[in-house]
Amino acid sequence: MKPKTNTNVIERWGIFELSLAGPSNGNPFLDVTLSAQFSYQNRVLEPDGFYDGDGVYRIRFMPDTPGEWRYTTKSNVPELDGQQGQFTCVAATTGNHGPVRVNNTFHFAYDDGTPFYSFGTTCYAWVHQGDALEEQTLETLKKAPFNKIRMCVLPKDYIYNENEPVYYPFERDEKGQSDFTRFNPEFFRHFEQRVGQLCEMGIEADIIIFHPYDRWGYCDMDAEGDYRYLRYLVTRLAAYRNVWWSMANEYDFLLDVKPMSQWDHYFHIVEEKDPYQHLRSIHNGNPAMNYDHTKPWISHVCIQHWDVKRVKEWRAAYRKPVINDECAYEGNIQRPWGNISAQELVHRFWIMVVRGGYAGHGETYMHPDDILWWSKGGVLAGESWKRIAFLREIIEDMPARGLSSMEGSFYWDVVSGGINGDDRLIYFGEHQPAQWAVGLPMEDGDYDIDLIDTWNMTITPLEKGPLPVSPPTRKKKTDKQVANPKPEAAFGVALPGKPYMALRVRPKK
Amino acid sequence: MKPKTNTNVIERWGIFELSLAGPSNGNPFLDVTLSAQFSYQNRVLEPDGFYDGDGVYRIRFMPDTPGEWRYTTKSNVPELDGQQGQFTCVAATTGNHGPVRVNNTFHFAYDDGTPFYSFGTTCYAWVHQGDALEEQTLETLKKAPFNKIRMCVLPKDYIYNENEPVYYPFERDEKGQSDFTRFNPEFFRHFEQRVGQLCEMGIEADIIIFHPYDRWGYCDMDAEGDYRYLRYLVTRLAAYRNVWWSMANEYDFLLDVKPMSQWDHYFHIVEEKDPYQHLRSIHNGNPAMNYDHTKPWISHVCIQHWDVKRVKEWRAAYRKPVINDECAYEGNIQRPWGNISAQELVHRFWIMVVRGGYAGHGETYMHPDDILWWSKGGVLAGESWKRIAFLREIIEDMPARGLSSMEGSFYWDVVSGGINGDDRLIYFGEHQPAQWAVGLPMEDGDYDIDLIDTWNMTITPLEKGPLPVSPPTRKKKTDKQVANPKPEAAFGVALPGKPYMALRVRPKK
Repeated sequence: MKPKTNTNVIERWGIFELSLAGPSNGNPFLDVTLSAQFSYQNRVLEPDGFYDGDGVYRIRFMPDTPGEWRYTTKSNVPELDGQQGQFTCVAATTGNHGPVRVNNTFHFAYDDGTPFYSFGTTCYAWVHQGDALEEQTLETLKKAPFNKIRMCVLPKDYIYNENEPVYYPFERDEKGQSDFTRFNPEFFRHFEQRVGQLCEMGIEADIIIFHPYDRWGYCDMDAEGDYRYLRYLVTRLAAYRNVWWSMANEYDFLLDVKPMSQWDHYFHIVEEKDPYQHLRSIHNGNPAMNYDHTKPWISHVCIQHWDVKRVKEWRAAYRKPVINDECAYEGNIQRPWGNISAQELVHRFWIMVVRGGYAGHGETYMHPDDILWWSKGGVLAGESWKRIAFLREIIEDMPARGLSSMEGSFYWDVVSGGINGDDRLIYFGEHQPAQWAVGLPMEDGDYDIDLIDTWNMTITPLEKGPLPVSPPTRKKKTDKQVANPKPEAAFGVALPGKPYMALRVRPKK
Repeated sequence: MKPKTNTNVIERWGIFELSLAGPSNGNPFLDVTLSAQFSYQNRVLEPDGFYDGDGVYRIRFMPDTPGEWRYTTKSNVPELDGQQGQFTCVAATTGNHGPVRVNNTFHFAYDDGTPFYSFGTTCYAWVHQGDALEEQTLETLKKAPFNKIRMCVLPKDYIYNENEPVYYPFERDEKGQSDFTRFNPEFFRHFEQRVGQLCEMGIEADIIIFHPYDRWGYCDMDAEGDYRYLRYLVTRLAAYRNVWWSMANEYDFLLDVKPMSQWDHYFHIVEEKDPYQHLRSIHNGNPAMNYDHTKPWISHVCIQHWDVKRVKEWRAAYRKPVINDECAYEGNIQRPWGNISAQELVHRFWIMVVRGGYAGHGETYMHPDDILWWSKGGVLAGESWKRIAFLREIIEDMPARGLSSMEGSFYWDVVSGGINGDDRLIYFGEHQPAQWAVGLPMEDGDYDIDLIDTWNMTITPLEKGPLPVSPPTRKKKTDKQVANPKPEAAFGVALPGKPYMALRVRPKK
């Protein structure tokens, strides 16, 4: 998807772009102010415009309502001020559901109401690898199950990530020193191209604005430099419907140079400059250093934590959707966040999802040329992504409401149970019962019960009936001798007694 | 091992037993007081005696020092009072190391200094199953790796445990009503026989004194009844060197009938009546209801918790040895504490042990006649016990000091690392690095490094050298740009990149 420049017709949630000629002398990034009021009937939205180099100024706008829209520009430069026009917003084309919003407290939906179940992956620096590898990454994503990708704006310097980027975000002198007051439009045009391509593929771009992996000085901009970068980025990209704002990766590793009050202010800038209020999150490094996700400008919880059974705690603490974007990656590097087995990552996905959260994928297999998917993209070398595709199909076949974790019994501390409307999903993981009844619906009604092998990706219908080995009836006890308050259920299903199984229970259709 | 009655020679940590004839009228359990002072030079110990039925009274004593011991009885019955005698305590026979004590804060050793690494199993009600099954259990234990067994004194009523016991601990009338003031000596003689047989096999008897799984009214004795039972039990059994006192299984399920102050008092009775101060612990049900293990009468932490990576927390909280006796059992029943896979139980054992704790085994495979090892004994049907034997061999081949968890890095939150003197053990579990350096000794010295496949039970020597794919050198950064404070180590080992591997590092011999 690309912006449509100076057009008269734009689809709903597409990008209308007004291109204007203006001054190129001085420092237009600092000197020129530009915005426009876009109105539909009595409703007004006011995006900023930006300087795109070579005397070209642009204002982008994403209309969310079909009909006639009008605009008037405002600028401190006469030739950019008071420009007026109108365009017609028409119905969205197939596959365009608008931006993703929070839905039903813990879940997501597109603006048109279509549920969005987040199955993301991470390729931090994929847009800094040059066209050949970047296009290979896009090809890989076409066959992969991921509908969200975490990606950094700024180049990355980290182990396995030593290559220079193709583009730099700021103008540089011969010694490589950046002028943080002058953006490099080519850098941003390239970045936008990739975001637009993701949009066409139905993939949300979870854009990481700050990160600590740096050797070019981008970490060390002063606060005003950060604010200017943030305004410029948001102004350019907010009209892309697939944008999510991730304020940082491992923000807490930057706290010595960017104190907490500054982080809050970053969010305020995004709130002010994004007319569409795209999703906003922030990602921690140290598991004990979660940002306070209850703050009102945080739309959903982005968490990095390996101990996935705690998702209930996070849901309860924040009352927002929980995405554990880094519950460790499938791979074999030395860092423990990048060397869990494929089976373990699939296991963690099931636990996160069944308990009413979402998880993120990544691959960190060592590669002779240091092309690790997690940072550079390329091809998928692992085994988890196919099982994540299988899980996604199962989740998308459930009610739109979204899963909530079963509660009220020790069972659900260790086994994962989720309810979604009349549907239930029980994931056993490392548990391998040969029979099961707990959490199955006991009330009247006909249910289909399926056994799901999460690793081998099979779904087998089961019969519900008397348990194959009925537990002994409990003898009469005094009230005080209740060793276990939950009586064994009388009906259930026979199971194969193997790990990594799940049950799906649905009303008969 | 059996008590030696009225003998002149007894081995160190054997059981000297004085048998005396006395009154059988009235209620000897209530009416007769009996004790004896055993002295070696100026040291005096004073065990109680007990009524064993049919006019027979017994006093048992476990001498811990070779040499001449003298005794004098005290009683309110003249014929039992003032009896004197002496015996010679000689060196212990092979395999007799005395009782187990706490050693080096977090570990155990026998009284003769031999380290004791706890590898326990659970057969709650095995002594209530009749001779055929009980003897089969003993046969199984002979080939199993367990050196401790958790077992209840009182009969058990619970799912899969509905059979009546062979013996009852109290006299019963025709309607099955117990007289809690009259013990059944036959019951205790049988129990002691089994404890003695375990002792001969080198297995510690972790004796569970109270539990909530009851239909006979044993839960509902009043406090004085509990105290009397406790005194009688301790008096009969304390001289068995392999006794550990486990005050209860899931004591918190009994709090409505036995308030917390009463639990503390139980421990005081054991302290008063056990001249040898055997190990004392108490086992929780609800993971949030741990007894305060810092109380001075608690020798070690007995915990029930599935989340085994928390062992560091428990060590830090209590500063005592930690045994996670129930981190769930291998099996396939519906209850989630009894249906984890063999691989998962082996995994939990490795995590507990490498991090400086101990774990307990149990099997809960469904059985047509409800003979589940966890409660009734019989045979082992699972796959974890062989791997636990393998782990035990590795641990017993390490220094006597005992393992301490590695700390100071996020690595050791997710990967398990242990140090024991100059030896190290690193367990990767669900992690599968293809190379590793962290935690390997970097200082001068020659080390043997072995790769351990914890499931397939193989040990393969590795070469330490430059890492097979050396991570890129980190570029110069400003001080503030430290994304990751731990530099990649320059030397390490190549690994197969599979889960469930471990490394053992030892000085070359």
